[in-house]
Amino acid sequence: MPWKEYFERFLQKDRLATGRLINILESDEDRGLKRELMKACAAQKRDAYVVGITGVPGAGKSTLIDGLGCWLLDQGYTLGVICVDPSSPFRGGAILGDRVRFRNLNRRPGAFIRSMATRGHLGGLGTATRDVIQLLEAGGFDVIIVETVGTGQTEVEIVSAADTVILVTVPGLGDQMQVVKAGIMEIGDIFVVNQSDRPGAEETASRLKNELVMFGDRDGWTPVVIPTVATKGEGIPFLGEAVIRRKEFLVQRGQKQELHKRRKIESWSRLLEERFAESLGKFLQTNAVGKEVRRKVESGEIDIYEASERVWEDVLRDCCNQ
Amino acid sequence: MPWKEYFERFLQKDRLATGRLINILESDEDRGLKRELMKACAAQKRDAYVVGITGVPGAGKSTLIDGLGCWLLDQGYTLGVICVDPSSPFRGGAILGDRVRFRNLNRRPGAFIRSMATRGHLGGLGTATRDVIQLLEAGGFDVIIVETVGTGQTEVEIVSAADTVILVTVPGLGDQMQVVKAGIMEIGDIFVVNQSDRPGAEETASRLKNELVMFGDRDGWTPVVIPTVATKGEGIPFLGEAVIRRKEFLVQRGQKQELHKRRKIESWSRLLEERFAESLGKFLQTNAVGKEVRRKVESGEIDIYEASERVWEDVLRDCCNQ
Repeated sequence: MPWKEYFERFLQKDRLATGRLINILESDEDRGLKRELMKACAAQKRDAYVVGITGVPGAGKSTLIDGLGCWLLDQGYTLGVICVDPSSPFRGGAILGDRVRFRNLNRRPGAFIRSMATRGHLGGLGTATRDVIQLLEAGGFDVIIVETVGTGQTEVEIVSAADTVILVTVPGLGDQMQVVKAGIMEIGDIFVVNQSDRPGAEETASRLKNELVMFGDRDGWTPVVIPTVATKGEGIPFLGEAVIRRKEFLVQRGQKQELHKRRKIESWSRLLEERFAESLGKFLQTNAVGKEVRRKVESGEIDIYEASERVWEDVLRDCCNQ
Repeated sequence: MPWKEYFERFLQKDRLATGRLINILESDEDRGLKRELMKACAAQKRDAYVVGITGVPGAGKSTLIDGLGCWLLDQGYTLGVICVDPSSPFRGGAILGDRVRFRNLNRRPGAFIRSMATRGHLGGLGTATRDVIQLLEAGGFDVIIVETVGTGQTEVEIVSAADTVILVTVPGLGDQMQVVKAGIMEIGDIFVVNQSDRPGAEETASRLKNELVMFGDRDGWTPVVIPTVATKGEGIPFLGEAVIRRKEFLVQRGQKQELHKRRKIESWSRLLEERFAESLGKFLQTNAVGKEVRRKVESGEIDIYEASERVWEDVLRDCCNQ
């Protein structure tokens, strides 16, 4: 079946077709096809509300999304969920099945869930993830939740990909200084202290609130701290309401559209950077100048700064031909 | 004082001079100076043993390094420690002081400790960190420990920057599946279960061992799992011995030199990629074609793939002139 038929079915919210189109975006094979598909997406001119959820592994993000997702469906929103699993640099593959991770959400119509093992050549979210966000956006999903793991680069990048960032933490993760240490306080719009039935939950929440006072408002939005026990569904309605309140705030202030534009430019820059990185890899492997300078760097004859000067123009010329 | 005098003092292990040279590498101001310095480093043709330590925040990595570092000094090795603090995308700054973090190591001669708040434009370790590794290498430090936080891109990149990767975990971090989920099992050469006086430590260690059996050897090296209680110094000698055993393994197998070469090529690629990203940023801000296509992307007139095709050659031409 040609992709356009899949696209028609996708616009009718057909799950199978949606999955097939995502496969195209994840694959590195047919760039022309990918481009056509993204063009068709852009032509839909739709704008979803993108919510990023991030935090340390084991904080219960999947269970939170399961609860929050069901709450959003109950309010009448359609929902796409993208889970970015940091793939190993050596072997790909999302290991945990979505069925296990989203017990309730998985059974509900109106929700589309997809795990993505891929990640960009340069790390972070990767072009494929950004493309899938745009695809689901074009498909008319009202809310798109993007789950990322860890406290590294993906977390920082989620800011540029999402309208709202939910930062999930748990009580007793060492000294609360750790939150500051990780340098991610400023990326959160909504803070969740999950597993709040554990000792130290109140202390964690109040320390977070103190930190937030220090950082102040973000473009007029005052970040909130919400205690939850996701496994029991406690606090989920509060979280859901905060998520929707934040959306209304963005729309009223005209920031929603700005974020949408910024997202596109960011995706575009990453696309160009990945293209360069790819060309560079080929250059160092196959180009005669590249191979020669590479040998000199390896043997220590020249340092990498000098090597960069020597190959720069050759690299750019080579990029043109690829 | 001109940098060459600092460099001479640095070669005599003068701390102040070492700090000043690192300031040069961290700064974005004088590229020419940076290049001269890196050239002088390359000319030393020295090769240190680089050990990366990574794991979730709050696992006690700093305390482990404090103990491991003192153990290595006791064995007669000189030691450099670089702590990569993920800096906020909005505000820089390494927040915790080294004096607090490395109580014992900080008082010992023979050890040089430096926190780096900087991180590369493209995320991950960043060129500055790689440069500082090469600097300390040139300074004749026997062992260089690089601490990174989180489970994101820095962790994956540490593989390409280090000879040995120590992955630190703690008991009870949610389901142990989390270790696999984070997709970082394959990057560890030595696994530490710190805080092993906490409940569930044995279970965590044995699950790790089972996972490792599944992944098998890595180029002939069988990863080890070591329980520690860093705050009490328990397990530190075992860890130290494993770190040195791994070094001897690499030297005997001729892999040490290969890793050294690979590290240089990796640094070089990142340098070129960062240069491109920088030029691209300028292009989109100041170039007439760039600004026009940017406007069309923002308004949704064209998609990012088409936009990439339209500007690619202009970007490359612009890169040449910068």
